[in-house]
Amino acid sequence: MNAPAAVHPVQPRIQPRPVPGVLIDALRSRFGAQFSDAQAVREQHGRDESAFTTVPPPAAVVFAESTQDVSDLVRLCAQHQVPVIPFGVGSSLEGHLLAVQGGISVDLSRMNRVLSIQAEDLLVTVQPGVTREQLNAEIRDTGLFFPIDPGANATLGGMSATRASGTNAVRYGTMRENVLALEVVTASGEVIRTGTRARKSSAGYDLTRLFVGSEGTLGVITEITLRLYPLPEAVSAAICSFPSIAEAVGTVIQIIQLGVPIARVELLDARTVRAVNQHSKLSLREAPMLLMEFHGSPAGVREQAETVQAIAGEHGGAGFEWADTPEERTRLWTARHKAYFAGVQSRPGCRCITTDVCVPISRLADAVLASVQEADASGIPYFLVGHVGDGNFHMGYLIDPDDDAERARAEQLNHQVVERALALGGTCTGEHGVGLHKMGFLLDEAGAGAVALMRTIKQALDPHNILNPGKVLAP
Amino acid sequence: MNAPAAVHPVQPRIQPRPVPGVLIDALRSRFGAQFSDAQAVREQHGRDESAFTTVPPPAAVVFAESTQDVSDLVRLCAQHQVPVIPFGVGSSLEGHLLAVQGGISVDLSRMNRVLSIQAEDLLVTVQPGVTREQLNAEIRDTGLFFPIDPGANATLGGMSATRASGTNAVRYGTMRENVLALEVVTASGEVIRTGTRARKSSAGYDLTRLFVGSEGTLGVITEITLRLYPLPEAVSAAICSFPSIAEAVGTVIQIIQLGVPIARVELLDARTVRAVNQHSKLSLREAPMLLMEFHGSPAGVREQAETVQAIAGEHGGAGFEWADTPEERTRLWTARHKAYFAGVQSRPGCRCITTDVCVPISRLADAVLASVQEADASGIPYFLVGHVGDGNFHMGYLIDPDDDAERARAEQLNHQVVERALALGGTCTGEHGVGLHKMGFLLDEAGAGAVALMRTIKQALDPHNILNPGKVLAP
Repeated sequence: MNAPAAVHPVQPRIQPRPVPGVLIDALRSRFGAQFSDAQAVREQHGRDESAFTTVPPPAAVVFAESTQDVSDLVRLCAQHQVPVIPFGVGSSLEGHLLAVQGGISVDLSRMNRVLSIQAEDLLVTVQPGVTREQLNAEIRDTGLFFPIDPGANATLGGMSATRASGTNAVRYGTMRENVLALEVVTASGEVIRTGTRARKSSAGYDLTRLFVGSEGTLGVITEITLRLYPLPEAVSAAICSFPSIAEAVGTVIQIIQLGVPIARVELLDARTVRAVNQHSKLSLREAPMLLMEFHGSPAGVREQAETVQAIAGEHGGAGFEWADTPEERTRLWTARHKAYFAGVQSRPGCRCITTDVCVPISRLADAVLASVQEADASGIPYFLVGHVGDGNFHMGYLIDPDDDAERARAEQLNHQVVERALALGGTCTGEHGVGLHKMGFLLDEAGAGAVALMRTIKQALDPHNILNPGKVLAP
Repeated sequence: MNAPAAVHPVQPRIQPRPVPGVLIDALRSRFGAQFSDAQAVREQHGRDESAFTTVPPPAAVVFAESTQDVSDLVRLCAQHQVPVIPFGVGSSLEGHLLAVQGGISVDLSRMNRVLSIQAEDLLVTVQPGVTREQLNAEIRDTGLFFPIDPGANATLGGMSATRASGTNAVRYGTMRENVLALEVVTASGEVIRTGTRARKSSAGYDLTRLFVGSEGTLGVITEITLRLYPLPEAVSAAICSFPSIAEAVGTVIQIIQLGVPIARVELLDARTVRAVNQHSKLSLREAPMLLMEFHGSPAGVREQAETVQAIAGEHGGAGFEWADTPEERTRLWTARHKAYFAGVQSRPGCRCITTDVCVPISRLADAVLASVQEADASGIPYFLVGHVGDGNFHMGYLIDPDDDAERARAEQLNHQVVERALALGGTCTGEHGVGLHKMGFLLDEAGAGAVALMRTIKQALDPHNILNPGKVLAP
């Protein structure tokens, strides 16, 4: 077992840049009660759900309430070449929010208005602090919904910035496909708009897709136009247990290859089902499980379910249990969404090192089974979940944060999971982003030439490197 | 009627840059029989389907047969700061191929191999000179197909470069959604790869989407990995005539708002049906017509068709005519694809000024009806077709190329069509790209700030402006 190469440091490089008192004074004067440098506020904005615990917090926090606020903040910071780090709800898993070069955190959670619902065009325009649950609550009366669901009740700004996806992506796509237009504050404080309300366009460079997934390093997203979908006439969810992970994954591969328009298909291993049972007071069978959902007309849903049942049967799937009422479905999906926390709570006091790879569907069994075997051999408690319809899965290694040897072993496991995914034609991150944690892996995946090209873009758009510096692109 | 503003020139600015004899010698020596500066070859590579007829041809043509060829060509041209203009089959409609700053045309049509079919992952990797018809012929045995169909039998390199779409986009998306990975030769001649074979990824800046739609101005695409789809179990096509364009468009709006997963829905006005009848020896009813296709299971197709028939009935749609056999469907779609040529041939000796706007679906009737009214009033012969499920439509004005007044009137009509689309929240080009023709409109659409940001990217990636210069970004 080799240690990860130097290009994959397991702790971030901390290089704080000076934050002049004159900037702090200017921010306090411009933002009044929207400004805080209280220790507790700074600390709350200096941590996320990543395994990194040693980064000092930002120098101050500004609670932006408008695009003008963001623009003014960026202009002031640009004058002093001080970093600006966008913050939503802090659900990042890869260290995106950490102030590794110091600077000012811009909290966008007060920019939480749904600006306009264009129901007849299946579109909505929101501020970046709106969360996905809030959005779906506010559009409930329209008969439309926003499908992208990464589990956490993340902000749509954060989801755009990390190119998030989650359980519904197999049918509805990711933020890449569902963000139609943006308003962005650039590194100079200028406000630009990208995209239009037209569903498609060939008008110039695809700036929308450039900002989606740029993790706050190219601009601060201040407005987002998203695609909505008619609520399906019929929805049906089902769980099915399998004798092995291999058989569960084999079922998924066949579903996808046949082109069944399944809306969700999630894998949980037996350990994770056990943790979920304990956490959510359920009594699911503690075996590898697929949790599925079908959307369509009543006949269409029936047809999809019959096809999938037949495939599962060939793989030893033990009878479907259906959840047809909204209440039952909510109970199941809530349990699924809490799998992360269920896992974390199954080892009190632990931190979780989460992996996030995505492979071509034909290689999913290879990727998952080898990862499970290595995790079993390591002795580190873990959980396994996956949006397997996309070829995307997560191992969560539950480590004792004070045990450096265990952390190193977990990072080594992560290293193996990622390098295997890359060797199989996959990606080092399906949906969590690069952040601090995967800069070395991005280099392995994309190659030095492509990363150099990304760096050229970053330097051109943010010449003083003030936008969330130290993330995405390895130094 | 005001003349178009100066920012929307109707003829391209021609600024040839010197092509030193030493470069010509070096190209001849490196490429041998793959190099040509014969007048006929240069002229063939100096024209496209746009209305521009006065641009001198490129200085020479190199027929690339490999990525190495492209890389060597770009390196040589970079040394002398001479433009490189990628060429596929010459089906561009907006002047993308024209050597407005002189330089070398790189013909990619010999790079026409399907490199690998990854059927189990619903993927294929091709060279850029493969055409969409060739691709579908070569993968016929896999049970899969590539849906993007802009009408012309364009190359997949050209389709990627212009972010093309066409008749199937309403269901399967555009090149934006269906290009998964690229190999690209950059302005320095370096070869980079973007994307992986994973369906989704959050790994760094979305270079794939940056090159898709960049019209050869940021790099030369030398390899493309595309998504494929299982051939639908059942396919059914139908035509339906309407008492007016308004009723046909109203039908489409309702289909989309209800979320019917229709695969294709095309509008032809009565004039266009007449031209198609003459060109393709058909006897379609000469009234506004929708041409539709449904994909799915037999029951699913039946269900969609019933829903759509009911909606059409409410809008005075005169009975469906079904085309259920592949032969009948091919006959209908071939006729549709020839609508452009049918239109052009309906006025012998004409050139066609094609418009290409896309609006939010709720504004489609406003956009189409006003455009038709203006065209009728102008006295210029025209045709109207549209991928109306996306809100995308085209007017083709058939002008006498020697009549400058008529050309100016047609450009003025185009101007009105575009500015109206922008006012309605749409885009100046749904699928044809900016090329030479829409640089001013891109500025109107995206705003000076966003276009300046595009220019910053262009300058950073192509500092000597050798990649298809003079296109996309207004000087």
